[in-house]
Amino acid sequence: MKNNNTKQNIKNSAAFLFNTKGFAGTSVREIANRAKTNVSNISYYFENKAGLLEHLVSTYFESYIAIIEQAYIELDSRSARECLILVIRGIMNYQKENRHLTRFVLREITLDSTLIREIMTTYMTKEKYYLQAIFEKGIHQQEFNSIPIPYTIMQLKGMLSMPYLYPQYMAEVLHIMPYEMYVAEQYSREIEKWVNHTICVPNERVKEKLLRIPVTI
Amino acid sequence: MKNNNTKQNIKNSAAFLFNTKGFAGTSVREIANRAKTNVSNISYYFENKAGLLEHLVSTYFESYIAIIEQAYIELDSRSARECLILVIRGIMNYQKENRHLTRFVLREITLDSTLIREIMTTYMTKEKYYLQAIFEKGIHQQEFNSIPIPYTIMQLKGMLSMPYLYPQYMAEVLHIMPYEMYVAEQYSREIEKWVNHTICVPNERVKEKLLRIPVTI
Repeated sequence: MKNNNTKQNIKNSAAFLFNTKGFAGTSVREIANRAKTNVSNISYYFENKAGLLEHLVSTYFESYIAIIEQAYIELDSRSARECLILVIRGIMNYQKENRHLTRFVLREITLDSTLIREIMTTYMTKEKYYLQAIFEKGIHQQEFNSIPIPYTIMQLKGMLSMPYLYPQYMAEVLHIMPYEMYVAEQYSREIEKWVNHTICVPNERVKEKLLRIPVTI
Repeated sequence: MKNNNTKQNIKNSAAFLFNTKGFAGTSVREIANRAKTNVSNISYYFENKAGLLEHLVSTYFESYIAIIEQAYIELDSRSARECLILVIRGIMNYQKENRHLTRFVLREITLDSTLIREIMTTYMTKEKYYLQAIFEKGIHQQEFNSIPIPYTIMQLKGMLSMPYLYPQYMAEVLHIMPYEMYVAEQYSREIEKWVNHTICVPNERVKEKLLRIPVTI
């Protein structure tokens, strides 16, 4: 139990420091100090700083992809629209719960770094596969308009990442606190309006009020 | 003329290098080499690397805000929907034309750096003012649904910045080339569907096909 705590503290401290000071600007000693442990524990669990980064990013994406995969599995029993809303609520909630790591990852994948690039391509290809399957089913079943899928994925990802990539802009300019629960919920609902009115064919809109899906999955 | 060319070459070279290698990872000498000039010319025009950064970011935002301000001025003679579409097409086009600087700026404002933060807050506050005026007029004239404006600005900015923040993701995962003209045009049209179907009240949709606005303004 104590060992798990130490490992988790190291991960939390690294996520916080990488986000605020950058990967290059953070030393192993600072991570150890913040985690109230010593450098040898970091070496024991993660070998070095690069190992810790790789572990953090991989773990982040594993859970992230699991949310989208779950929505994809639900295609068997739910409508494409419901599955898409599961994606939106699941990802918004996950990003809010992991805000330091989310911002760090979203920023890192804007860089042309090799490590991130390889990890990113693997997970983002999986993500694309699941999202595409949801959109294709929706189009096939005439639930969705015949939208161009890659452009729609871009719009979706753009809207989902905005609050966690630019929390400072949101707080200082728009006066919205991205880490508050009601903000994540209201923003999800606004994205869902896009699903209901732009993605879905008009006659699907009447079902809007009947849908009951829990916020977390 | 020659002096203007030198200054412009320095700016283009700096934008390219800051984007690909980061601000900290770029030396004044590298900028001079790429611009085929010498370091003293950079000192003459911009004092130092920080001066060059500030100049680039300020110039970028001046032109960026001018596009949105122009759309705001057009509120006198056009509908709110037309003005919003002018914003979308104008910004998409501007970002495509200034892709290195756009990506650099979009990434820099994710950081908590003081310089960028101050510049960012000033321009982003102006941007918010103009966008808010467009949305308010649309709501007031019952052209737009009564949307929550800050959340709508977030969605709009998220969609607009996506292709220029993640060109590598777009190319490698979605197989879309963000710098090609038809990509920028088609992506604009997809965002405009969101305007027409989610932002506008239903009876405004019939006007969709009648609208003729040039892509650039």
